[in-house]
Amino acid sequence: MLVLTQGDPSGIGPEITGKSWHALHKGGPAFAWIGDPGLLAAHAPVQPIHDLAQAGAVFGHAVPVLPLPLVAPAIPGKPDRRNGPAILDSIRMGVDLALRGQASAVVTNPISKDVVQSADFTHPGHTSFLAELCGVPGQDVMMLAGPSLRVVPVTVHVALRKALDQLNTELIVRTARTVARGLARDFGLLAPPRLTVAGLNPHAGEGGLMGREELDIIIPAIEILRAEGLDVTGPLPADTLFTPQARSRYDAALCMYHDQALIPIKTLEMDEGVNVTLGLPIIRTSPDHGTAFDIAGQGKADPSSLCAALHLAARLADNRRAASTAHPV
Amino acid sequence: MLVLTQGDPSGIGPEITGKSWHALHKGGPAFAWIGDPGLLAAHAPVQPIHDLAQAGAVFGHAVPVLPLPLVAPAIPGKPDRRNGPAILDSIRMGVDLALRGQASAVVTNPISKDVVQSADFTHPGHTSFLAELCGVPGQDVMMLAGPSLRVVPVTVHVALRKALDQLNTELIVRTARTVARGLARDFGLLAPPRLTVAGLNPHAGEGGLMGREELDIIIPAIEILRAEGLDVTGPLPADTLFTPQARSRYDAALCMYHDQALIPIKTLEMDEGVNVTLGLPIIRTSPDHGTAFDIAGQGKADPSSLCAALHLAARLADNRRAASTAHPV
Repeated sequence: MLVLTQGDPSGIGPEITGKSWHALHKGGPAFAWIGDPGLLAAHAPVQPIHDLAQAGAVFGHAVPVLPLPLVAPAIPGKPDRRNGPAILDSIRMGVDLALRGQASAVVTNPISKDVVQSADFTHPGHTSFLAELCGVPGQDVMMLAGPSLRVVPVTVHVALRKALDQLNTELIVRTARTVARGLARDFGLLAPPRLTVAGLNPHAGEGGLMGREELDIIIPAIEILRAEGLDVTGPLPADTLFTPQARSRYDAALCMYHDQALIPIKTLEMDEGVNVTLGLPIIRTSPDHGTAFDIAGQGKADPSSLCAALHLAARLADNRRAASTAHPV
Repeated sequence: MLVLTQGDPSGIGPEITGKSWHALHKGGPAFAWIGDPGLLAAHAPVQPIHDLAQAGAVFGHAVPVLPLPLVAPAIPGKPDRRNGPAILDSIRMGVDLALRGQASAVVTNPISKDVVQSADFTHPGHTSFLAELCGVPGQDVMMLAGPSLRVVPVTVHVALRKALDQLNTELIVRTARTVARGLARDFGLLAPPRLTVAGLNPHAGEGGLMGREELDIIIPAIEILRAEGLDVTGPLPADTLFTPQARSRYDAALCMYHDQALIPIKTLEMDEGVNVTLGLPIIRTSPDHGTAFDIAGQGKADPSSLCAALHLAARLADNRRAASTAHPV
């Protein structure tokens, strides 16, 4: 059973959750929601449950809800910091259920850093908070996955100039190892994962003519990874790395900075991109968009990415279960 | 009449020229080739001409060629610097014909900087050489144009770190003015051109949280351009700037560095992207790829981008002619 967190109650989370239930309640995958039942009532039938084991019997006719009441009223488009603790509790409960093996995966609705920022939460975002809750701080790796492309930004939410300063061989190596492990374990590939690494500079630096990071940082990382037996190509010019022909040659592309990864996936996959966190002991996905306070409460939010996140979480959980049965530890 | 330069004789230029003639000789647009007639003979019927005015009568049954003999034999895949002067002469002749109004536009086959580098040619590429030949050094602006997207990299063939150093308000303003003028004059838009400007940092900096270039450099440029009456939006996050919905809102996107522009256009338009040089008194297009020495002479080069470049050059020339008739100077 998947668990879906509440996210920010003033964002589009409740609406896309209701719409996702309507899309999935007949064919699945089933999920239970962790949040304030009143929030969802406008969007779908809800039924509070007290144990996740009850969720399967409920999902066909209502959203099973593990209740977690809000303190302040949730006004669409008007986030309220008083609800911060409940937003975080929903995530904590979801992670806890997954760590104890009761939930097969955690899918998270979008949150706003500003709303949850507190003594308990000083993270740049969801992902590093999840890593901390899972007891593996700093191990999280963000992947964006769509039907025809998976990308991993090696540096993420920092200014581009800072990303250039952060980039180093060790970071690329560590990220690639996590991606290779995650792909092999959870993605049901038929062969060992094929990684590719994008260059940082135009034309991947043209042998040093346009930047030396390929020679000094990226190629040494690729050599280390190959020596470990991983199938890694690159560094390849980023501009031609996302054509259909190029995409057919790898299972995931490691990109050097946020937009190098996000431009191609958002351009190609639009509403079907899913954010997957690798490097955690649990499976976690989320839609590839934010709280969208500007359109909250207007009935026009698109649930495609959340639906895709639920589908992918279910598929990853199935694969992991199958893999662990096939190769008992 | 379009003129097509020889490009590097050891690259795929001769092959894609022959293939383009086969694709276009019945329906046009017609072009004359400036180069060594022997180079093309393996790929298409050729007929030397001595005056561009003869080309129209020839094009239906052969490639009209303004002869420019090579010094060294052209071996596919083995560029020879001795042919450098002839490569440059072909470009010079093409520009001269266009400046004198005999050619309606110049389309260039790919060259390799290494081969033509000499006392006469110290440019980082084709484009700035053309600007010099046209007497407008430094005025050239590179646009990549495809059926559904036009992008302009504000900084181009430099290391990413250097691009960050080069970026300034004046450069953005100057580039945007050239793009707006070019779009309005040659692209047959039905309304004044709508430009958009991409942010440099993830999420366009999120108000300074992830980099200050948007606040310090890009927004001031947009304000100057708007004060001049131009329709300019931005800075917008680059990752969501190339979805179909976003693309419908602008005629060209100004991007802050090479890959930010080239990733989306090559991902979306693949073989149909065309390189257009704005800011010159003449019309110039070229295919959006290099000499491809690695596959030269093997018969597998794809002429799509050259064909698209010829089509676009003809369209731009028609538009400019129509505009100059409608508004005689």
